[in-house]
This record gives sequence, structure tokens and C-alpha cells, in this order.
Amino acid sequence: MVLGHESSGQVVEIGNAVTRVKVGDRVAIEPGVPNRYSDETKEGRYNLCPHMDFAATPPIDGTLVKYYLSPEDFLVKLPDGVSYEEGACVEPLSVGVHANKLAGVHFGNRVVVLGAGLVGLLTGAVARAFGASDVVFFDVFDNRLDRAKDFGATHTFNASKLSAQELADEVKELLGGQNADIVFECSGADACIDAGLKVTKAGGTMVQIGMGKNYTSFSIAEVSGKEMKLIGCFRYSFGDYRDAVKLVASGKVNVKAMITHRFKFEDAGKAYDFNIAHVGEVVKTIITGPA
Amino acid sequence: MVLGHESSGQVVEIGNAVTRVKVGDRVAIEPGVPNRYSDETKEGRYNLCPHMDFAATPPIDGTLVKYYLSPEDFLVKLPDGVSYEEGACVEPLSVGVHANKLAGVHFGNRVVVLGAGLVGLLTGAVARAFGASDVVFFDVFDNRLDRAKDFGATHTFNASKLSAQELADEVKELLGGQNADIVFECSGADACIDAGLKVTKAGGTMVQIGMGKNYTSFSIAEVSGKEMKLIGCFRYSFGDYRDAVKLVASGKVNVKAMITHRFKFEDAGKAYDFNIAHVGEVVKTIITGPA
Amino acid sequence: MVLGHESSGQVVEIGNAVTRVKVGDRVAIEPGVPNRYSDETKEGRYNLCPHMDFAATPPIDGTLVKYYLSPEDFLVKLPDGVSYEEGACVEPLSVGVHANKLAGVHFGNRVVVLGAGLVGLLTGAVARAFGASDVVFFDVFDNRLDRAKDFGATHTFNASKLSAQELADEVKELLGGQNADIVFECSGADACIDAGLKVTKAGGTMVQIGMGKNYTSFSIAEVSGKEMKLIGCFRYSFGDYRDAVKLVASGKVNVKAMITHRFKFEDAGKAYDFNIAHVGEVVKTIITGPA
Amino acid sequence: MVLGHESSGQVVEIGNAVTRVKVGDRVAIEPGVPNRYSDETKEGRYNLCPHMDFAATPPIDGTLVKYYLSPEDFLVKLPDGVSYEEGACVEPLSVGVHANKLAGVHFGNRVVVLGAGLVGLLTGAVARAFGASDVVFFDVFDNRLDRAKDFGATHTFNASKLSAQELADEVKELLGGQNADIVFECSGADACIDAGLKVTKAGGTMVQIGMGKNYTSFSIAEVSGKEMKLIGCFRYSFGDYRDAVKLVASGKVNVKAMITHRFKFEDAGKAYDFNIAHVGEVVKTIITGPA
Repeated sequence: MVLGHESSGQVVEIGNAVTRVKVGDRVAIEPGVPNRYSDETKEGRYNLCPHMDFAATPPIDGTLVKYYLSPEDFLVKLPDGVSYEEGACVEPLSVGVHANKLAGVHFGNRVVVLGAGLVGLLTGAVARAFGASDVVFFDVFDNRLDRAKDFGATHTFNASKLSAQELADEVKELLGGQNADIVFECSGADACIDAGLKVTKAGGTMVQIGMGKNYTSFSIAEVSGKEMKLIGCFRYSFGDYRDAVKLVASGKVNVKAMITHRFKFEDAGKAYDFNIAHVGEVVKTIITGPA
Repeated sequence: MVLGHESSGQVVEIGNAVTRVKVGDRVAIEPGVPNRYSDETKEGRYNLCPHMDFAATPPIDGTLVKYYLSPEDFLVKLPDGVSYEEGACVEPLSVGVHANKLAGVHFGNRVVVLGAGLVGLLTGAVARAFGASDVVFFDVFDNRLDRAKDFGATHTFNASKLSAQELADEVKELLGGQNADIVFECSGADACIDAGLKVTKAGGTMVQIGMGKNYTSFSIAEVSGKEMKLIGCFRYSFGDYRDAVKLVASGKVNVKAMITHRFKFEDAGKAYDFNIAHVGEVVKTIITGPA
Repeated sequence: MVLGHESSGQVVEIGNAVTRVKVGDRVAIEPGVPNRYSDETKEGRYNLCPHMDFAATPPIDGTLVKYYLSPEDFLVKLPDGVSYEEGACVEPLSVGVHANKLAGVHFGNRVVVLGAGLVGLLTGAVARAFGASDVVFFDVFDNRLDRAKDFGATHTFNASKLSAQELADEVKELLGGQNADIVFECSGADACIDAGLKVTKAGGTMVQIGMGKNYTSFSIAEVSGKEMKLIGCFRYSFGDYRDAVKLVASGKVNVKAMITHRFKFEDAGKAYDFNIAHVGEVVKTIITGPA
Repeated sequence: MVLGHESSGQVVEIGNAVTRVKVGDRVAIEPGVPNRYSDETKEGRYNLCPHMDFAATPPIDGTLVKYYLSPEDFLVKLPDGVSYEEGACVEPLSVGVHANKLAGVHFGNRVVVLGAGLVGLLTGAVARAFGASDVVFFDVFDNRLDRAKDFGATHTFNASKLSAQELADEVKELLGGQNADIVFECSGADACIDAGLKVTKAGGTMVQIGMGKNYTSFSIAEVSGKEMKLIGCFRYSFGDYRDAVKLVASGKVNVKAMITHRFKFEDAGKAYDFNIAHVGEVVKTIITGPA
């Protein structure tokens, strides 16, 4: 099976009825196409369509090919000045866009991001672009926290020696005596989920983006007692890809800062091997398209 | 300390500036008065005010007295035809109203209620009054499920021998092959929380009302993978008491069906003892006010 | 061109890929099918799709035929006990459903309906089914107001001799000294639009459903000064047809009460002539399908 | 009567129970204090409270005094680096904040502002700070449009010789063939209200901020046919003042650019006369507080 679902490219051929793109257009490719007839699609939440065709999700082949077929409305034009590499980064950025929309992040919000991996970095950067006044990143690796400064961080914190309660106390102090309006849990780690619930203010929201174990030891009493919301986040939906391209084009999110390695198309296999062997070091590896 | 926070009564004296009630008015008494200056109050969520004075929550005395002092705007007039006993039931009914508003229950929703105790019954009844087309109650006691038929149940199910997954399968079959739009978890039991998450549809909502252990083994993967919402629910806020009185007055919720026992004011102590000794049998015990 | 867009029928043939309906199913036919690729459709507002194919809107033929072709997802099954005639009434009822959803009508709302014609009657009936505690109808004809009693009216009022201000004063008195939470303007008449704005409470909503003149003399100061919302309402969108069928099946809206006349398929032309000649008398005329 | 409602100052004395401010704090003064007991206040919309005490609105005196008494929760601390002059500008900026919140402006929105007076400038600047990708200002004076460039304008347009339809056509071209997501009508002029409705996309929102004549010739057909929303906007509510201070402190809105003239406290009368005599030239005149 062909891998790949984070891609950009150039339109080389179009069908007769196509009106939105033309041959030569440079585009980001949204990799999941829902069934057009499902209830979820017509409700405006096509990411929840149970009949989605998603690149590189069996039995659907991925995008790591010379020619890829896409419906025109799942292509987003790249403005001049946005490179193909940046176009490929639109996919994970769209996850951050979607998470921020689900949480309703807006001007003045105090936001905490747990986990400064790829998705955490992008989600925090989007939060800042959406107007958050504070974006506090937590991680256990200093090199990741350093990188967070390029992704909207107003504060970073190494949580490696903190209990959930100590972490909550740190955040409260950083935020002037208040808990966070919105928490993005991007690690999937049990301790972070626990800390995230403690850090959220009464009436606040935590978005669970990270995937960890199926079950976690979970403080349901925090959710009830504070009347808070826990929201799941699954991929992205209408408008997220378009907004992610806008974020890149406007310079509000610098996705280039997450590209740490590059391989040629011919060396794609090596790229996967390399990523596995260098997990701590890699943020994003780009495979350059075939000539 | 004086106990009691579910009460009604007659206005016997008013201050000079009072305009909303007059001596002789029959009223339900909302037992928690927030600080008028707090952010939460001015945001429209006074139930989250950290400076709430709540009857029978130390150091504030409760309502089980002959004379009780309340600000006029925390009294709701009882229309003719609504008895004092019904007025006292407005308090737990307001919890059900608040939970339904948080969940946004509206016409046509398919609703599941886990736990047919007092709050579960009232929450289900409100769901039906708010337009839910299906209200499925689960409990492990048949006598509670029988009572649910007076509280809006369209289906009842004894879950005592079912795993969480079997329960989820039953609901799906009952709802014509679909999961629930909205789940009210009113038991606080670990197994019910687990079942509730499984029963909720993709994009759906579970409201956690029941209070159980602080921590539970929790399927965070259900929340993420289905992009569902888990919402905590804490007491009630502006408008809930008023709407609860409207529900009783309109006959849409028959709170009288939950009154199983009555004691005189002089025997209040016995009433508490009786409730503790007959947990399985009691739904709501009324203590008649002093002469 | 073929007319007709309010129809029901029986499935007589299906394509290979059809899974939601089978031959023999009795269905209501949603007459407008949007482009599946448009932004509006994917946003969850397909009624705003600029490429809609709508029955009997040129160049698309209508439903007044023996055989009509529809995508399966624009058919809603009629439960046993819902007749074809009621199925045909689902179309205008869906407008009422859509208007109520746009306005967010829920339990306890005080609602005013201006104009007791077909759409007004159905919109008011839906408001009541959605939980409105008060539904006040205004019209200038007593026979229409009499009919409103079958469509959820809690109060009716003949406005023929009232100024906009007098009408507003009447409503306020009826509603216990308060203005309406939500107003449905179903007449399109200048005087009613004016009265509707006056009748809406501060922070309330008026939905403009009636189509009158393009321009009206409009009290923009009411909108500003009361921070109210005026919302346009155009046809119906995802879920409205389904909910309209549920309303009929549940008995909450009795659409049969709006059928005043019946003609055979062969006499369809006469039916149109009759309607034009008897505007004041006709509410809904049913044309029975061909044998 | 004392005039003045746009003010800042220093705390010189506090009551015993005050905890949020201390003597010496520099603060912006929110000039309208609602009744704490009203429904509107407890609903979270205190700007709609009918019992508001608003500075310089009879019989309440204004803020143009040496000592002014305010409840502590209607004072917002000015961070270091925000001057008293900027603090005085927080009042009109809060109107812009409120309008943007009502409209739900967020990242990527295409916004049109009709009228580049004080409120228009600030509302556009807030829209840009809230993430609008396009903020198109229209006015009939070039000097106002020049100033708009300091207030978030991405495009400016002199509308003096355009019909409403021509103006709509211009906007559509500027926005790449699409109408505006959100329109702020800040002029109150009949022609602008008309143009604003035309410029709004299907499903979009126009906020009416400008106050003109009570009645206008209004295209109700635009509202209906496009299912658009018209929202009134009245002052500001909880959180708006706080967010306005944040906007100034963050540098996202440069309120200093709107200060065109300054007078001493002793010359306050002259300041009013000057403003009246130089309407076209004045944006904001500051009266420096008494020594």
C-alpha cells in the first residue's frame, strides 16, 4: 500500500467539469474525502463521516506518488510565496486549526498546551494567531520547549519533575492567579491528562488531541465540580485546510520551523527508517516529490 | 447548623425596596445566592461563583426553619395550582433543567439516562419536556425503572447483567441502529460512565451529573475518536429555577410522583433517620413546614 | 414546465447503490437538492447553496408527475400512521422547523407569530412543539385566528384596528408585562414588520419569513437600541425534513387541520384556478397522485 | 449636570471590603453600572439592564470631575506602559470589542466597515486584531480613509460617488469574488445601511452600530433571501473593557492614533465648543484631568 497523507503538488490535468483549479495551479491536498451523502457531511461535520476515504488508510492508497487523483474541492490553492514544503505542512496545521475552532479560542484567552511535539507546537501557534494572550507550553524535553518559542509560546515549562498538582500551581501563578481558559492536551500521557483537568478553570475547556492508551485514570470529579468541558478532536473539517493555508500565507504560523529533515522521493524508505531511529530529534521530515 | 435547601414558603415580610414579591406570595426558594460582583456572576454563570452562599453549606444555615431570609430575585412565585410540596421539588428539578440546557436538548433528540434515582428521573423528564423523541433509562433496580415511566421514559432497561458494550449494543438497537445524541450520566458508577461514553454517537454529548469516586477508569479514546463532548454539570444558574416552576405548572413534569414519604416539621430528625435506613425505597421525603 | 414541490410518494424503483430506501417505502420528498461540492453544503447550510436544483424552479421540473427521480438521501420515510397527504404537508412544515431552529426556540419561550396564513400556522405550531410556553398569533381575519387554535395558539388577536404600538402594548400585557423572546414575522406586511420589531424584547430575535415588498420602512433604531437580532429564513436545511416528519408522527403538529380542499391529479389545473379564486378561504389544497 | 463617560484615573481611596484595587492603582473606568439584581445582569448581558446607572446620562453625573466613585469591579487596571490617555480611549474601544464579539469575528473573516469615524476605526482595528484577514473601510472623506490605515485597514475605498450596488460590486471584486462574512455599519446613513445589506454574503452578519434616523428604507428582501443576520449593538458588556485594555497593552490597537486634540481640565468647556466647530477634523479630544 502507498503511504503519505501530508502533501502538496501541482495540478497537471483536470476533468471537464472542474472550475476551481486549473492546470499549473500549486495546491495543498486535503487527504480525506467524505461521502457526499452522509448525514455527518450534510450537517457540516464531514470529519465524522463513517464512509471517509482517507489517504493511506486501507484500502485507500496514500499520496506518496507521482500522480494523485483528488476532487477539486479538496484542493486549496497555495498563494505565491507559500512553498510546496509549507503546503505539505498544512495537514498537521489543520489539526491545530480544528482544535482551536472546537475550543472557540479567541482574543484574550489564556491557553495551556501539554506536549510540545508536532501537533502541540502547531496547536499552540494557531492559538496565538487566533488571539490567545498567553500560550503556556509544558513538556519534559528542553529542546522541544526551546522550539516552542517559534510557535507562539509566551511561557514554557519543563514538567519533568512536577506532579500534576505542582504543574497546576505553576500555571496558576504564571497566569496571574487564574487557571487556564482552554487546555490542549497533545501528549496522550496519563499524567498530562490529569494535570490538564486540574489546570482548566471552572467553566473552561480541555481539548483532547493526543492519542495514548485507550483508558486512563481520570478525575471525573474535576469535570463535574468545575462544570468544565472535555472535547475530543478528530482530524479537521470544512474550512480548516483553507484557514491553515491562510495562516501560513499571512506569516502568522511559521511551519518551516518544524521541518528538521529532508529526503528525496527515491529515498522515501530511508526517510521512514530515519524517523523511527531518531524520534527525539525529528519534528517533521519532508520527502521531496518525484521529478 | 440548620439543614435544608429544597424549600418553598410564603412571603411574610418584605423590605422597602422589594418590588417583585409581596406579602402573601407563595414562592419556591432558590437556595444559593452568588456574590453579585464576581466575574462568573456577570458572565451569566453564577453557579460557578466561588463566593456563593448556599443554604446548608457551612457556614450558611439551611432552610429548615420557620423564617428564612432571601433576596427577592431568588424567589420564584408559585402559580395557583402548584403546591408547596411541588415548590420544594423545584430544587432538584432545576438540576435537570440545567443539565438539559448545557446539553442543548431539543426536539427530536435521542437521549439516554444512566441511573433512575431522583436526579436521573427528573433529568429524563425534562429531556422529554424539551422535545426528546426517545428517553431510554438504564438502572439495575426494576422498581426504579417502573417509576421512570412517570418521568418521560420511552424505554427502560435493566442493566444489571450487561457489560458496558452489551448495554451500548442494546441502546443502538432500541434507537434504530444509532447511538444516542445525548447521554446523562446520573449514577456516578464507573461502569455507567464507561457505558455512557460508548453509547454516545460521534459528535454527541455526555453530561456528567452523578458524583461517584474522584477518579474513574475512563475511555479517553472514545472521546477523541468520536470527537464527542463530556460536560460537567454543577447545580443550576439563571433561569433554571424559573423554568422548573414553568415545567411543574404546565404539567410537563409531575414532580409529585417522586414524593414517597412525608414527615412533620417536628419530626424532621426522624425523616433524616428514615431516609438513611430506607435508601432503596425512598425517592423524596417531604418535611411539612412549621405551623 | 411541471409544477409541484410539496409531495410524497412510494418508492417504485431504486439504483444499485441505494441502501436507505427500498421499493415499496412510503416517503416524503425533499424538493431541493444542493450541489454536493459547494462550500455552503459542506458547511452544513445547504439551503444557501447557489447551485441548488429545486423542484418547479426553472429549469428544474416539479413533482406533479407520476414518476419522480430523487437521490435517496432526500427522501424521508413516512412511519405507519402518517398518510401521503400528511407527507405532502411536510414541505411547508419544514420551513417552520427551520425558522424555529434559526431562532433557537426552546422550553419556556414567549413567542409571537405575525400572520396566521399557512406558514405562520405551522411555524407557531412548531414553536409550541419545541416548548414555547406562549404562542400569540396576530392576524386581521378572525377565521384564520380561529384556525390558529389548532396550531398551538395560546392567545390570538385581531390586529385589524391596531397601530404597531397598540399591538406591541397588547402583547406586553398578554405576556405579563414583558415583550416577546422571539417573533416570527410571517406576513411580509410593512405594518407587521414594524410591529414585530416593537414587540421583541431587548436582546430578543425576530425571524423574517414572510416575503413582501423588497423595501420596507424599517425601525433600525429598535434593532440597535435593543441589541436585537433580525434573522432571515430561507427554505430548510439538513435535518428539517426529518424533524418535520417526526413532528407529524408524534402528533405534535396536526397538519391535517390545514388541508381545506382536495382535487384529483386529472384536475390539477382546476386546483390552481380554484386556489387563485378563493385565496381567503384556502389554506392547503391537496392534489391526489395519479393512479 | 457633569459630563464625561470616557475616563481613566488613579485610585485615591478604597472602602473596607475592596480587594481588587488598591490606592495608587491606575485604572480605566467603565462608566455604566447595572443593577445587580436584574435578569439581564444575571443572564450575562448587563448592557441590556433597564436600570443601568450610566455616567453623564441623567440623572447620573459624569466623570469629568476630580473625584469619582466607582464600584471596584468596574475598574480595569492599566498595565505599565498604558497611559491615562489610552485608558480614556478604552471606552469607545470597548464598543468595537463588543460589536466584534456579537458578530463572532475570528481568524480569516472578511470584514467590511462602513464609516471611518471613531467607532468605525476602532471596530475595524479590533476585527483585525481578532484575526480578520480583510478589513475593507468605506467612507466619503479621504482623510478618514487615510487614518484607517492605522486601524487595521487592508483596503480603503471612497464611496462618495458610488451607488449601493456599485459599492457592493467593488467589495466583491476586492474580496476575490465573494461578499463579506461580516459588515459593521458604523455610519447610520441610509445609503450605507442599504449597501451593507447588499455586501453581506448569504448566511453572513451585519452589525448595526451607527445611530442615524429612527426609520430607514430597508431591503428586507436581502435579509430573507440570503438568510442573513442583522444584529443591533448597544454599548458593551462583561469582559469587553478588560479585553479592550488587553488590546491596547498588547499594541494590537493603537488608540493614540485617534487622539487629535488636547485641552486642559480648566478648558473643558472650550473643548466641547471646539469639537462642535471642527467636526470633520476632530477624531478624539482628550481633556487632561485636574491636578
